[in-house]
Amino acid sequence: MPSTTLATALYLIELAATLAFALSGVIEAARRRLDAVGVVVVAGLAAFGGGTLRDVLLDRRPFFWVTHTELLWGVLILGIVAMLVMRRRHLEPTERAMQWPDAVGMGLFSASGTQMSLAMGQPPLVAVVLGMVTAVFGGVLRDIVCNDIPKVFRDHRPYALFAFAGGWVLIALDHAGAPQWLGLVVAASVATSLRLLAMWQDWKIPSVPR
Amino acid sequence: MPSTTLATALYLIELAATLAFALSGVIEAARRRLDAVGVVVVAGLAAFGGGTLRDVLLDRRPFFWVTHTELLWGVLILGIVAMLVMRRRHLEPTERAMQWPDAVGMGLFSASGTQMSLAMGQPPLVAVVLGMVTAVFGGVLRDIVCNDIPKVFRDHRPYALFAFAGGWVLIALDHAGAPQWLGLVVAASVATSLRLLAMWQDWKIPSVPR
Amino acid sequence: MPSTTLATALYLIELAATLAFALSGVIEAARRRLDAVGVVVVAGLAAFGGGTLRDVLLDRRPFFWVTHTELLWGVLILGIVAMLVMRRRHLEPTERAMQWPDAVGMGLFSASGTQMSLAMGQPPLVAVVLGMVTAVFGGVLRDIVCNDIPKVFRDHRPYALFAFAGGWVLIALDHAGAPQWLGLVVAASVATSLRLLAMWQDWKIPSVPR
Repeated sequence: MPSTTLATALYLIELAATLAFALSGVIEAARRRLDAVGVVVVAGLAAFGGGTLRDVLLDRRPFFWVTHTELLWGVLILGIVAMLVMRRRHLEPTERAMQWPDAVGMGLFSASGTQMSLAMGQPPLVAVVLGMVTAVFGGVLRDIVCNDIPKVFRDHRPYALFAFAGGWVLIALDHAGAPQWLGLVVAASVATSLRLLAMWQDWKIPSVPR
Repeated sequence: MPSTTLATALYLIELAATLAFALSGVIEAARRRLDAVGVVVVAGLAAFGGGTLRDVLLDRRPFFWVTHTELLWGVLILGIVAMLVMRRRHLEPTERAMQWPDAVGMGLFSASGTQMSLAMGQPPLVAVVLGMVTAVFGGVLRDIVCNDIPKVFRDHRPYALFAFAGGWVLIALDHAGAPQWLGLVVAASVATSLRLLAMWQDWKIPSVPR
Repeated sequence: MPSTTLATALYLIELAATLAFALSGVIEAARRRLDAVGVVVVAGLAAFGGGTLRDVLLDRRPFFWVTHTELLWGVLILGIVAMLVMRRRHLEPTERAMQWPDAVGMGLFSASGTQMSLAMGQPPLVAVVLGMVTAVFGGVLRDIVCNDIPKVFRDHRPYALFAFAGGWVLIALDHAGAPQWLGLVVAASVATSLRLLAMWQDWKIPSVPR
C-alpha cells in the first residue's frame, strides 16, 4: 500500500535526520570542550529541536520522539559512546567534520517538514516555511547553546536558502503527481547536495555593501 | 455591524504591526551587514515572532500568517526590495531609523495581543502580559539573531513598560464601555507615543546602584 | 482523599519553585545592574519559563500562572520590593546567593514536571526529560537574557544531571507503590541536595580533554 511506503519513508528520513543532527551536536559540543552532560544535551537539542518546534507550530501531538522513545535512548547512547571514543582515541573534532552530518540533516528535515505540513492541510508557502524551520532550528539551538552566532546567520554561504529550495522541489513533484516517497527522497537529496556543493565551491550570498 | 468593524480593525492593526516590525528587521539586518537571506529571515522573525508566540501560548490556530499568507509573501518581497534599494542607493541604515518602526509595531501588537487574549477569555493581568509578550518578542528575536543583547533589556529607556501600560489602557477603556476598535486605537497610540517620547526626552528607568 | 493531598502537594511545590526561581532571577538581574523593569522581566522569565515550556510541550492549558494569577502578582511584587530593598540596604547580590534558590527551584520543578508528565500518560523516559526541561529552562532563559552563557552548559558541576536523576527517583518510588506526594517530596529533596553537595564539594563532570 502506498500509504505504508510513505509512512516507512517518513520514519526512515526522520530517523536519519535525527541521528545526523545528533552527530553534528556531539562534534560541535566536543569542539567547545563541553562536559559529558553538555555533549548529550547539545546532541539532544540539535536532534530534536527542529522537529519539536515544527510540531508545536502545527499543534501536532504526540511528538516524534514521544511515539518513538527509541530515538531518545539512541541519542543518549550516541552521546555517551562518542564521548568515550573521543577521550580514548584523541580524535580532533573539526568544524568541517561537523558540517557533513549538518548538511544531511538539513536536507532530510526540509523534505519531511514540508511533507508533514502539507499533509496537515497547510498552504504551500506555509509548508515550505515550516520545512525550513524544521531544517534550521535544531542547528540554531546547537550553535546558541555553544555560544556561537548561529551558522545560518553568520557564514555567508547559503543554508536556509537550500532548505527553502528543497521544500519547493517537494511541492513541485507533488503537483507533478510523483509518489510522495519519491518527492521526499529527491527534495532531501537536492537540498543536501546544493549545501555540499556550496561548501565545496565556497558559494557566497551577496550582502549589503559597506 | 460592530463585530465586523472590530475584525477589520484587528486585521489592519496586525497588518501594520507586522510590516513595521519587518521594516525594523530589515534595517537592523542591513546595519549588521547580513547577507540577503539573513535580511529576509530577520525581517520574518521580527514580523512574525511575537504574534506566533502569543498564538502558541493561547493555543490559537491557525496562526495569523497561515490565514493571511499574503503577509508571508509581503515580508519576503519587502526584504528583497529593501535589499536591492539599499545596494543601489547606498542608504545608511542607522539604529535611530530602526527605532521608529519598532516603536510603532510595539504599540500596535501590545493593543492587539491584549485584545485577542481577552477575547479568548483570559483574565486581565494575563491578557496584558500576553500583549506585552506579543509586543516585545519579535524584537527580542531580531536582536538575538543579530547577536545583540535585546534592546528591551539593554537600553535603560522604558519599552516593555509601555507595552504593559498600553494593555492596561485597553482594559480600562473596555471596562468603561468604549467600542473595542476605539480601545485598540487608543491603547496602541498611547504605547507608541510614550515610547517615542521616551526616545526623544531620553527618559531612564532607575537601576540598582553600584 | 489522596488526590486532594496530591493536588495540594503539587500546588505548594509549584508555588515554592516559582518563588525560588523568581528570587534567583531578581538576584541575577541585580548583579547585572539591569533596570527595575529588567529585574521584574528576568524574575518572571526565570519563574514561569520552565513550567510554560513544559505545558506547551504537553499541550496542557490553561498554564499554571493563568489558573493561579496570584503567582503573576506575587512575582511582580517580589521584583519591585526586592529592587527597593536593594537600593536602600546596599545588599551586594552575589552569584553564590543566586545559586541557593536556583538549586531549590531546580529540584522542585524536576519532581513536579516529571509527575505531571506521567499523569498525562507520557512514557517514563519522556516524563523524566520533560521534568528536566521544566527544571532547567527557566534558569537558561534567565541567563540568556542577562547575556550570560547558561550556567547549565558552562560551570562543569552537574546540574541538568541531577534534574534527570530526580525524575528517575520519582519514577522508582512510583513503581514501588509509594504515595505520589511522598515521591514528589523525596525526588525534589534528592535533586536539590545533590546540587548543593556538588556546589559545596566542587564536583566536576569529565569533559573531552584537549
